[in-house]
Amino acid sequence: MLEKAGAKARRGSKTKTRVRVVEDGRARVRPDVLATEEPMEIRLISGERKQTVAVTMRTPGSDFELAAGFLYGEGIVSSRDDIKKISYCVDVDADQQYNIVNVELWPGREYDLRPLERHFYTSSACGVCGKESLDQLELRGCSVIPPGPGVDADVVTSLPEKLREGQGLFDSTGGLHAAALFDAGGNLLALREDVGRHNATDKLVGWALLEGKLPLSEHLVQVSGRSSFEILQKCLTAGVPIVCAISAPSSLAVDVARQFGMTLVGFMRGGRFNVYAGFDRIITQ
Amino acid sequence: MLEKAGAKARRGSKTKTRVRVVEDGRARVRPDVLATEEPMEIRLISGERKQTVAVTMRTPGSDFELAAGFLYGEGIVSSRDDIKKISYCVDVDADQQYNIVNVELWPGREYDLRPLERHFYTSSACGVCGKESLDQLELRGCSVIPPGPGVDADVVTSLPEKLREGQGLFDSTGGLHAAALFDAGGNLLALREDVGRHNATDKLVGWALLEGKLPLSEHLVQVSGRSSFEILQKCLTAGVPIVCAISAPSSLAVDVARQFGMTLVGFMRGGRFNVYAGFDRIITQ
Repeated sequence: MLEKAGAKARRGSKTKTRVRVVEDGRARVRPDVLATEEPMEIRLISGERKQTVAVTMRTPGSDFELAAGFLYGEGIVSSRDDIKKISYCVDVDADQQYNIVNVELWPGREYDLRPLERHFYTSSACGVCGKESLDQLELRGCSVIPPGPGVDADVVTSLPEKLREGQGLFDSTGGLHAAALFDAGGNLLALREDVGRHNATDKLVGWALLEGKLPLSEHLVQVSGRSSFEILQKCLTAGVPIVCAISAPSSLAVDVARQFGMTLVGFMRGGRFNVYAGFDRIITQ
Repeated sequence: MLEKAGAKARRGSKTKTRVRVVEDGRARVRPDVLATEEPMEIRLISGERKQTVAVTMRTPGSDFELAAGFLYGEGIVSSRDDIKKISYCVDVDADQQYNIVNVELWPGREYDLRPLERHFYTSSACGVCGKESLDQLELRGCSVIPPGPGVDADVVTSLPEKLREGQGLFDSTGGLHAAALFDAGGNLLALREDVGRHNATDKLVGWALLEGKLPLSEHLVQVSGRSSFEILQKCLTAGVPIVCAISAPSSLAVDVARQFGMTLVGFMRGGRFNVYAGFDRIITQ
């Protein structure tokens, strides 16, 4: 049984401030609310071994899901059964900022930090390229996502508004990305927000991991903004067949989707959207 | 004299594809253009020592500026005089993807990769927090930006449209962030685009570094999208007094601006914008 201790962030996801609003050349002061951005350190503990594996700038909230989702997306943990306990670091109470999350693995669960080294590696030839990035996903065990589910085009067009409605924080701060999970009928199952789109996706995947819901093979993920290699990689690892983004994808996002049998939707505007890969899952007239 | 060899990317910044456009439940196929996303590896060469310092997903184009701006922003090089030569790696011609950039330092120029380790470090206490991130900037030698220049509010309101007009790639792909440099009169001096906002900013700062224009103490930087700690840090390092972002800042972006005497503008909508820090540089009625 996985323990989650002290899951209460001291710093909220919103920060109050005062701004000067300039309009038609005149300024006035008014209160405003910002999306909080704070560093979070993820530490991995395995027996006597304890080490920092990442420091990410994030919006406080769902911190344990962020830690779990990050480790899963990077291939460092492969199941929630690897994780014994997730907690805030309490070494120094006086200065506790709830910004360090300890992830303790069960004894005997060995972990491999080599996947992280691709952010910081040395290779010998000049062959680094998009193709190699796709090959690395295969080497990490990612395989083609099986066919299904079929999703009605009307369901797809309904997602941006549902995402926006679910984004409580965005309304007050205007500064947060979101990632949301839907079933094939378009019902919202979970939504996570963050100043970083990759963090919002990690939080969502971390939630699914900790809830025992992986792989998400009957689901859609809807993200705000654009889609990139990183977003597709995180969704692929979680087994998500259909990824929708409000704005345009990058070339490499499309390459990942095509190589691994994913459906990629983008440029969602009113009743219109583009399908860049995996059109067979979209049910049209 | 700094050499720049082989500054010609094989892969363009745009990638052609075919998409299915779904509208009112009906699908049709049409050609489309995507923003290219490809990995780029930055290698540092100093005498016999040669090592990879970063792999970043970027849009090809201005690759040497990206490498230079990244190394400057991270505090690894402090002047263009540190750099002897920037070139694409040509070890393996057959597979040349123009995705590896070698940055060769002059003999005797020692470099220190410790600044990079903050992405991947181990600390002993629980004190990691936004304040610590600000302290690290001071430790790296960042100091308060002197007063000036004064900029008319009308100049600020004119920037988003000028940014958009300068964004040739965005019009075709809809998928690129931009960072642009303006003088205090609102004249566009340089604009760089990328799938990643941090890369667009690195390209812009790298251009200024290689052109011998640093510090940018009389200038404004306008970025698309939101502003974060990372964007403010890069601008601070380049000495930029005024940073404008189309959308909202994060709390830590505002903290950096206030601590280091920068002006931070956001939420630019028509003739209206918010000033989050350094209002004294904005000339209103």
